Amino acid sequence: MTTEGQVHLVGAGPGDPELLTLRAHRLLSEADVIVYDRLVSPEIMALIPAATRRISVGKATSHHTMPQEAINRLLVDLARQGLNVVRLKGGDPLIFGRGSEEAEALRDAGIAHDYVPGITAAQGAASTTGVPLTHRGLATGVRYVTGHRAADAALDLDWDGLARPDTTLVIYMGAATMAAIAAELIRRGRPADLPAMAVASATTPREARVVSTLSQVAEEAAGLEAPVLFIVGEVVSLCAAQPLPELLADLPMVANA
Amino acid sequence: MTTEGQVHLVGAGPGDPELLTLRAHRLLSEADVIVYDRLVSPEIMALIPAATRRISVGKATSHHTMPQEAINRLLVDLARQGLNVVRLKGGDPLIFGRGSEEAEALRDAGIAHDYVPGITAAQGAASTTGVPLTHRGLATGVRYVTGHRAADAALDLDWDGLARPDTTLVIYMGAATMAAIAAELIRRGRPADLPAMAVASATTPREARVVSTLSQVAEEAAGLEAPVLFIVGEVVSLCAAQPLPELLADLPMVANA
Ligand SMILES: C[S@@+](CC[C@H](N)C(=O)[O-])C[C@H]1O[C@@H](n2cnc3c(N)ncnc32)[C@H](O)[C@@H]1O
Ligand SMILES: C[S@@+](CC[C@H](N)C(=O)[O-])C[C@H]1O[C@@H](n2cnc3c(N)ncnc32)[C@H](O)[C@@H]1O
Repeated sequence: MTTEGQVHLVGAGPGDPELLTLRAHRLLSEADVIVYDRLVSPEIMALIPAATRRISVGKATSHHTMPQEAINRLLVDLARQGLNVVRLKGGDPLIFGRGSEEAEALRDAGIAHDYVPGITAAQGAASTTGVPLTHRGLATGVRYVTGHRAADAALDLDWDGLARPDTTLVIYMGAATMAAIAAELIRRGRPADLPAMAVASATTPREARVVSTLSQVAEEAAGLEAPVLFIVGEVVSLCAAQPLPELLADLPMVANA
Repeated sequence: MTTEGQVHLVGAGPGDPELLTLRAHRLLSEADVIVYDRLVSPEIMALIPAATRRISVGKATSHHTMPQEAINRLLVDLARQGLNVVRLKGGDPLIFGRGSEEAEALRDAGIAHDYVPGITAAQGAASTTGVPLTHRGLATGVRYVTGHRAADAALDLDWDGLARPDTTLVIYMGAATMAAIAAELIRRGRPADLPAMAVASATTPREARVVSTLSQVAEEAAGLEAPVLFIVGEVVSLCAAQPLPELLADLPMVANA
């Protein structure tokens, strides 16, 4: 049996359609069918040719409308029909994206597949807020962790490592656990007034931000709508002068002080 | 005095021109002048309209042909001439890219500027090798560090944090120091046979890889040409089945086992 279908595991970036890569953009126009997450912005979905079939698998941070195994089977089935499938994911497929789990299922089924990286949420939030992920004298590295935990499980993070002053800490899926993470970091010696921010829907017209401190950021961010990313570290002090862009689609210029 | 010039601090991604964002691509076509690093691939430079002025500031990993202060002054001067300037950097401007240092100089000079994120080297290497940066059961987070150190300075890394088994470790600018980093990680308890790989010129036709172990990777990667990225962690075990793409420009498909 020949299998002519294929699956592209494609990162859509944080939301702004202009942050799609050229390859992602091309593959979206060539696809027979697009299987997408709730994290993919409506602005990006609006770019897809009207005639292209699209299937929502409705993944959200807190619950998966379609279990991962069902998504895996769907991708295999579509490819076996000989279709050119784009599996479109928010951000990058290989950073908290489960792209490699889908790839394993495709490999086991003998389906050709490849990855297209996407701008991850941390990079999107950095670019619109002006907060660098590394900066001489403030952060010699950056670390992405997840605040997500299985129901009833304890947060099992590398607390002492996370409490290092020279590393920017980015917390994905942390809306429910950021208060606990902050409390523990403070207990391990990080200053309560360490700069920290929350960015919701970074790079979209719905972007909203709270620039605060480690001890306050979870509470102040409580009203933000998902998806929310937290960035903790001295680098956040460089955010102050950057107002929200007014018209993202028209290329925001960072205003000057 | 009015300043009508502006500077876009733009990430070019890891090298494959199709990994430019749509915005980066548009800005390159609109720019009056492009100020670029040695890390920007020749394939990307070839996309720039022939008539566009381009200035190389020749930054390489080991030495800066033009000191950072001179680059800052150049950007300010060009913008003061009323020019639309693209400052093009390899990868992402806010990850080991010194984009925020240039932004500070522009802000001090009252020059309008903004950031455009780019696919960072780690994402490029992940996408072509099939090695995820996070993966359920193998890595709950990822950390980007630099192996670069000032002349004669000791490597001051968070060794115990780096030695955590649940975090993928990505080392930028590590060609000269990877052997020392690996030795120290092993001394702190990481297994000598932990999967580790080096990827040179990821996503370009010059891409080359060594898939090895923590104790061997520095030696085996010695022949690779810059730029080289190291990825260390259990996730590297997922690389095995992914051969080098033959024709990157024609969209590599990951071959099946
Ligand atoms: C399942 S993870 C997916 C991450 C994605 N693969 C990436 O690389 O950005 C979902 C989390 O990503 C973060 N996120 C994704 N897009 C975002 C955006 N535009 N603004 C803020 N956070 C975002 C939020 O923390 C959210 O809970
Ligand atoms: C000064 S840092 C710049 C990083 C860049 N801003 C980014 O986000 O990728 C230079 C280092 O990036 C890594 N690098 C950049 N492009 C690469 C590529 N195409 N392949 C492998 N490593 C790369 C190498 O480790 C190199 O020493």
